[in-house]
Amino acid sequence: MKNLLLAQSGGPTVAINATVAGAAQYALQNPEIDKVYGGLNGIKGILEGRLVEIGERLKNPDEMHLLKTTPASALGSCRLRLKDVETDEESYEKIISVLREYNIGYFVYTGGNDSMDTVLKLSQYLEKKGIDDIKVMGAPKTIDNDLPETDHTPGFGSAAKYIAATFSELKRDCNVYDIPAVTVVEVMGRNAGWLTAASALARKTGCGGPSLIYLPEAVFDIDAFVEDVKEKLSENPTVLVAVSEGIKNKDGEYAAESYQSGAVDAFGHKYLSGTAKFLTDVIRDKIGCKVRAVELNLMQRCAAHIASQVDIDESVMLGYEAAKKAFEGKSGEMTIIKRLSNEPYKTEISSVDIALVANGEKCVPREWINERGNDVTDECVDYIMPLINGETKPVYKNGLPVHFEI
Amino acid sequence: MKNLLLAQSGGPTVAINATVAGAAQYALQNPEIDKVYGGLNGIKGILEGRLVEIGERLKNPDEMHLLKTTPASALGSCRLRLKDVETDEESYEKIISVLREYNIGYFVYTGGNDSMDTVLKLSQYLEKKGIDDIKVMGAPKTIDNDLPETDHTPGFGSAAKYIAATFSELKRDCNVYDIPAVTVVEVMGRNAGWLTAASALARKTGCGGPSLIYLPEAVFDIDAFVEDVKEKLSENPTVLVAVSEGIKNKDGEYAAESYQSGAVDAFGHKYLSGTAKFLTDVIRDKIGCKVRAVELNLMQRCAAHIASQVDIDESVMLGYEAAKKAFEGKSGEMTIIKRLSNEPYKTEISSVDIALVANGEKCVPREWINERGNDVTDECVDYIMPLINGETKPVYKNGLPVHFEI
Repeated sequence: MKNLLLAQSGGPTVAINATVAGAAQYALQNPEIDKVYGGLNGIKGILEGRLVEIGERLKNPDEMHLLKTTPASALGSCRLRLKDVETDEESYEKIISVLREYNIGYFVYTGGNDSMDTVLKLSQYLEKKGIDDIKVMGAPKTIDNDLPETDHTPGFGSAAKYIAATFSELKRDCNVYDIPAVTVVEVMGRNAGWLTAASALARKTGCGGPSLIYLPEAVFDIDAFVEDVKEKLSENPTVLVAVSEGIKNKDGEYAAESYQSGAVDAFGHKYLSGTAKFLTDVIRDKIGCKVRAVELNLMQRCAAHIASQVDIDESVMLGYEAAKKAFEGKSGEMTIIKRLSNEPYKTEISSVDIALVANGEKCVPREWINERGNDVTDECVDYIMPLINGETKPVYKNGLPVHFEI
Repeated sequence: MKNLLLAQSGGPTVAINATVAGAAQYALQNPEIDKVYGGLNGIKGILEGRLVEIGERLKNPDEMHLLKTTPASALGSCRLRLKDVETDEESYEKIISVLREYNIGYFVYTGGNDSMDTVLKLSQYLEKKGIDDIKVMGAPKTIDNDLPETDHTPGFGSAAKYIAATFSELKRDCNVYDIPAVTVVEVMGRNAGWLTAASALARKTGCGGPSLIYLPEAVFDIDAFVEDVKEKLSENPTVLVAVSEGIKNKDGEYAAESYQSGAVDAFGHKYLSGTAKFLTDVIRDKIGCKVRAVELNLMQRCAAHIASQVDIDESVMLGYEAAKKAFEGKSGEMTIIKRLSNEPYKTEISSVDIALVANGEKCVPREWINERGNDVTDECVDYIMPLINGETKPVYKNGLPVHFEI
């Protein structure tokens, strides 16, 4: 009987532990899998032999529930990319020796593009070496929703729910005064605007939501932006703007960088403010009204207290299926979500060759952004809407959420 | 039979609508009070005669519940302070004529220091003019918790809960990597550090919480700060710092301003970053490790989806008692919370002469901050702890919170 190894890498999300929980759940149900190990700090920790047994504890349903509702990577993460086997075979040999030491037959690695690159390289190495009693599967994870092949990624739905709920609350907050004011809210996304697009869902709550939405997928023009804001101000004194951190001008340069090249901070270093701060500086300069810059920052990827139940459930299933497929002999694949229908929302879990995913990127289609490039279409909203459904039941003690800790 | 008028002013909170709901609840139960009106945009809107009937709708318990769980001021707000009656008697006359027009006998004004100044001036004017069939009561509100006389203020408990939960989630997020990194989180509070102190509660969740906490009530020294951070980094690679926006150096200048006097932004204007951004610049310069600045910004005052049930319940009672006392003939007072015991947590609602409250300020006692000025004491934590207890039941539709709208 072989053991299962689980590890996480890349930026944390609210749903990444649910995927580990799902994979562990499969192993605990399968009498032909012995122990469940967690590799600490992703492939980096595995290289260092840092594995801990986690299956026993997860037999307790309360602990399993806690793991599913705990934000960030409970097993720790890393940003390490494996080098090509030609230049660093030693690392691959080291990984295999650690897996052998712990009698690992199945390894599920949860992460984004970089992590899938690790799954690809490792599975290719195993195949090349003719090692067929270790199976490596990938399970997707990224709030950015930018992985190809899967309809969407776990972690995105919860981040989208946080963003939509927060824009709704922010709009209520901004609406209380009747003097002209522009609030620019910066959302994560260097290349893909999915998270920023989710701000549009706030409109469903009746508060009006964001007045303008700018994604990296449409060219950002500063003069058009000032005109857009002026027009919205003429309709309503409260203007709320959603903007991706990664909006770019027609030359493909980040908007904030291209205009601030000469600025220095108090220490004489090159100064670069965030995108929202930059845009409020522009509005103050060109329009002169009250402005405020808000960054959703790390909160958008760790606000487990407002996770999407759909997202958590899907994340569990993606982990479960990855472990199941590894046990059934699959290797070098990543589990994916297929959307079968939108109303009612129905999906199925499948898997694809990891080579189709690794290092790929899926952005918001240009046709899901309006022509002017300052809003998203109904089709885009309809795509995101079902992913934020349902509220999880985080455990609270003395008024604070309780989390799972290794 | 007279009518009740309710209005809100100052910065919005998560609990300010609960106070309006409580006052309306009293009026709806009292057969000797006829209609309930809301004055839009506080005293500014009342001066303009913008009153709307809200009592009929609030007879529906679902609408009442919705109002209690809706963030920001549902009736709108203003920043208007009444001038002294000697220089602007016209405004006072205008207010009285509007109150007469709507047959208002009881007026409950919910807000912070400035709003209580309005209650003081208006009640003094009524007394001076011998008008005794209009009673004006204040009900407290401010996330800053800086009003004197009351044990704490409504809105604070919910903001404290958001801050403590968010610090707990942020710490989980920061903990995933094992490389040295400092995250500085800026919390609201120009003079009073109550909200920043609430970050300490995150430690109760077992994540470790903030490593260092700086409030405006203790002198901030930049060299001591760098030493503090270095020491914490030597113990743990993940350092999370909580800092009030209003920390000041020994000369009483805002720390961020005093060091950035020469900096200019991309437009050549005087540039002043936020306090957290400034501190991360300092760490990058003096220590050189990875840094991140986070501002909790507007989210800390509008995150109704994680409100404190204790806070909402108390806010309802403060509004209820304010309306009740006005009906019973009291005027020129503000309702307050008295803490009777901490374990079990017990309070009673009372009221005090508004003159004791208006324009006053209550800061964190210096003895609730450690000698080094980089943390709060257990006594401070014990004071805040009961205020964040209990989770409200916001209404969700399609995955998003539903709010009350006038």
